Amino acid sequence: MNDPMERQLQFLREIDRLKNIVRQSPLHDGSRRENSAEHSWHLAMFAWTLSASAEDGVDIGRVIRMLLLHDVVEIDAGDTPLHGPALAQQSEREQQAAQRIFGLLPDEQRTELLALWQEFETAESADARFAKALDRLQPLLANVAAGGGTWIDNDVGYEQVLERYGPVIRRGSRSLWQIAERMVRKHFGRE
Amino acid sequence: MNDPMERQLQFLREIDRLKNIVRQSPLHDGSRRENSAEHSWHLAMFAWTLSASAEDGVDIGRVIRMLLLHDVVEIDAGDTPLHGPALAQQSEREQQAAQRIFGLLPDEQRTELLALWQEFETAESADARFAKALDRLQPLLANVAAGGGTWIDNDVGYEQVLERYGPVIRRGSRSLWQIAERMVRKHFGRE
Repeated sequence: MNDPMERQLQFLREIDRLKNIVRQSPLHDGSRRENSAEHSWHLAMFAWTLSASAEDGVDIGRVIRMLLLHDVVEIDAGDTPLHGPALAQQSEREQQAAQRIFGLLPDEQRTELLALWQEFETAESADARFAKALDRLQPLLANVAAGGGTWIDNDVGYEQVLERYGPVIRRGSRSLWQIAERMVRKHFGRE
Repeated sequence: MNDPMERQLQFLREIDRLKNIVRQSPLHDGSRRENSAEHSWHLAMFAWTLSASAEDGVDIGRVIRMLLLHDVVEIDAGDTPLHGPALAQQSEREQQAAQRIFGLLPDEQRTELLALWQEFETAESADARFAKALDRLQPLLANVAAGGGTWIDNDVGYEQVLERYGPVIRRGSRSLWQIAERMVRKHFGRE
């Protein structure tokens, strides 16, 4: 297991498990909940497609990579639903997961992926702020498409949606929040 | 629908349907078959992680984008299993799907994504050859991990696996085929 390629393949085998982590968000057709692997794919497509809505200087290639790996820690730590109660020690569990899972890779890659994941979590760089905005926008679209989704499940109303989605999306892209806010108003009949 | 951002969001809503396209390949734990959205995520992670196995000059950022979009046409055209019969008019169906789905995007993006998809299909550039190699390697790993997967389902033996996987993987990366061939030999007890 010291051969770099063997370590890379072991990592790729391990992350197959992300396909079994089920999130709260529905598919757009409402047929089932989405898993974190397909969510990560969708988000990478969001970053690429909506790149013109990012601030100047955002590196979309980095944002795509950040989004591809941002949920890998859930293999050990589980998903943290936006509308659920805060879980004690969740951040610590995710840190341990990152060490274990990225630690399967050769040292140089472990360092690279760990740093990019930490940057996403910290959400201070322009790249991370755009990534976080998309990670909030994508389930908003799914909820609207599915006729309410997790908002109905958790009895979340208009004001709460503005509070829980607005700041993160606006911080990453004002133009995306403008269009998202219109969708939310329409969904809740507040036009 | 002429606003670019509205068109981008419409495209992102449409491709949610890729999560419902079920492939033949199993998850590594054998619990179910994988869908084309999570497959595309996994492949993007393959490209990133295994970038050192690509030929000199391969642009991994382009390969990642190519793999993120390579199966989007299946929303209209369906998946084409490697071990199934060749389907008449499949290529034509995929071309029409690409026109329709990428055509949801603003013109400049439609042109960009369509060109990248065509490049993948043609498989002549070094980027596309590496992408194709990964698209063949990923289900090979899944079959080995799941104890046979589509090879058992389709009564595919050692020689056929070498024939159907070897040329495409070797053409994209000799070192990846070296390690993949070892896995296949071990799986079929030919060590």
